Amino acid sequence: MIAMKKITDKIVKPSSSVTIKEVAKLAGVSTATVSYVINNTKNVAPEKRQRVLDAIEQSGYTPNLVAKSLRVKKTNTIGVLVEDIMGYPVPAIINGISERVEKSDYRILLNDLRMLESLFNQYDQIMQQKNKINEAISLLLFGARVDAIIYVGMFDRNITGILNEINKPLVIAYSTSDDKNFHSVTYDNENISAEAVRHLFDLGHRRIAVITGLAHTSPARMRMRGIQRAFSEAGIVLDSALVKNGDWEYASGYSCMIELLSEDTLPTAVFAMNDLMAVGAMDAIGNAGLRVPEDISVIGFDNREFAVYLHPKLTTIEIDLKGIGQLAAETALNTILGVDKGESSLIIPSRLIQRKTTARVVTAVKESALP
Amino acid sequence: MIAMKKITDKIVKPSSSVTIKEVAKLAGVSTATVSYVINNTKNVAPEKRQRVLDAIEQSGYTPNLVAKSLRVKKTNTIGVLVEDIMGYPVPAIINGISERVEKSDYRILLNDLRMLESLFNQYDQIMQQKNKINEAISLLLFGARVDAIIYVGMFDRNITGILNEINKPLVIAYSTSDDKNFHSVTYDNENISAEAVRHLFDLGHRRIAVITGLAHTSPARMRMRGIQRAFSEAGIVLDSALVKNGDWEYASGYSCMIELLSEDTLPTAVFAMNDLMAVGAMDAIGNAGLRVPEDISVIGFDNREFAVYLHPKLTTIEIDLKGIGQLAAETALNTILGVDKGESSLIIPSRLIQRKTTARVVTAVKESALP
Repeated sequence: MIAMKKITDKIVKPSSSVTIKEVAKLAGVSTATVSYVINNTKNVAPEKRQRVLDAIEQSGYTPNLVAKSLRVKKTNTIGVLVEDIMGYPVPAIINGISERVEKSDYRILLNDLRMLESLFNQYDQIMQQKNKINEAISLLLFGARVDAIIYVGMFDRNITGILNEINKPLVIAYSTSDDKNFHSVTYDNENISAEAVRHLFDLGHRRIAVITGLAHTSPARMRMRGIQRAFSEAGIVLDSALVKNGDWEYASGYSCMIELLSEDTLPTAVFAMNDLMAVGAMDAIGNAGLRVPEDISVIGFDNREFAVYLHPKLTTIEIDLKGIGQLAAETALNTILGVDKGESSLIIPSRLIQRKTTARVVTAVKESALP
Repeated sequence: MIAMKKITDKIVKPSSSVTIKEVAKLAGVSTATVSYVINNTKNVAPEKRQRVLDAIEQSGYTPNLVAKSLRVKKTNTIGVLVEDIMGYPVPAIINGISERVEKSDYRILLNDLRMLESLFNQYDQIMQQKNKINEAISLLLFGARVDAIIYVGMFDRNITGILNEINKPLVIAYSTSDDKNFHSVTYDNENISAEAVRHLFDLGHRRIAVITGLAHTSPARMRMRGIQRAFSEAGIVLDSALVKNGDWEYASGYSCMIELLSEDTLPTAVFAMNDLMAVGAMDAIGNAGLRVPEDISVIGFDNREFAVYLHPKLTTIEIDLKGIGQLAAETALNTILGVDKGESSLIIPSRLIQRKTTARVVTAVKESALP
């Protein structure tokens, strides 16, 4: 960040010294007309518009936006590099970024790495994309001259080693990094997972199954840590036979639930680490002739759009995606202005949304099994 | 489009004549090192990197990307202006655009107008946003010097009169315009609606209800036209008592269905003009103790993500959003290259996806009512 400040303080002569008056003279129109054409604010007769455009090209005139940015050494633009716009958290994060930067008269330029098709959920292989990612960052820095970069992950993984150091502020949203040169803004996995388990405890559940995401991934590990903490704090033992490893997809939620339904003593509740696997589990429960939540309660994670269209509506955990975007933008703006708070890793709280898939344990047999 | 070509043909002297060698000399490093820093492709020691960055600033050197774009008068960048990134069709359209432009070594710069919060479904009021929209276009044209603009609507309305004429190619995706200066790429509403009705006829349905979107909007009118055409071609009369006006939201689908369920003779099938209203209708049918599709068949429109998580899975119509993005990008690129095909309004076919909410009419009473 020191590097950035040094550069900002320098006074650099604008590379273009042609004025709007000279353009107007060359085109044989008023300066107001030139301004209308440049700012596209008023209809100008096609033939006149063309003369102005020709004059701009001939004179090498740099219109106000660029000229201003050269004078103040800022473009008031933040480059937003997204791993994939089709990744479910990405549009809401961009929405938060846009809203925040607009308030400070900044704007965003977005570049989509389109990593979803190439990587799907093989997130480990992101290292293969390292060159592509850093080239895209260079393009935003040197091509579009953005004042800062926000890198938006589609998965909350640790991307240490992926991003080369740059001389502008760089904020990572949704993913994290151990590199202290970058800020990161992500959401809470661990505390909210503990809270979800406590919600099940409060309803009398003790035989709680867990359907994990890909077990080696960061969110799966952090969510598991929260789950284990809640069990340990309540002095209840988590039966490891009730922990099944899914892969974040619907089909794995379904097949893990089939396995759980073959247990001698059924679980009374299932915590699936995302909504897709929760729907899979609900469908397996339904196909086995059991009911949600009367026989088995279900909790998901993500609060995807479809959660409210399920029967019953899914109890799940909401990640404040827009908030992540807003705080990432806030952090980038503060760093540009040199009022950076210095905290490099920010975590936004998540929220449990109680809907209709969790209910109190009622059967006497199950109650008797409580510790 | 002629205006654009005239400008492209001119040869303009690059505004910066500093070379990478001079920057290297000033920084006391090799040209390779300067290149590493500019392209961010290799780690360079922080102190050395800083000397290079200082030399770039002092010399006014314009790195290769910008210099190249000044030489060839192209930035190989297409500005993508979206009405709202949270609008459900928008991310998939951007995905299609990105994929297509990448193949031609172009890239996109995105600007989000964030109109969803301000307009919601009051699409008529888009005229109020006219200045904001045209300013955003100017920013892309003169600030980022994009070679073309793609305007991505979040609703397939006619936006004639909104966009000022510009001297670069402009393609409208998802929305349409009567202005022949712009190309537009959208999807088929009318033929596919007729096909959906014919699918219901084929299953023996004659008493078919329609839950429309906001009745004065362009997609609602075009879909209605297709529905009426199918009825008329089959010589069957559409009972106007079975046409209910919704507003595209879940709640209206629910309440329209409640009204339909109070009819003396129930419909055997319902065509809801989007999936949200279809879910509302399905929930109303279920709450009335009737079954989908045994008692009433349901067809939606949009093939939203949740369609496959409903019970039963929703028969619906898929819009090829990615295809719209790809064709919009293709059209923009062709216009830039001067190989524009000249068709200003392009329509991509939609597709009926038969899932589990539509079935053959089986009851004898209802069969007897067939013409």
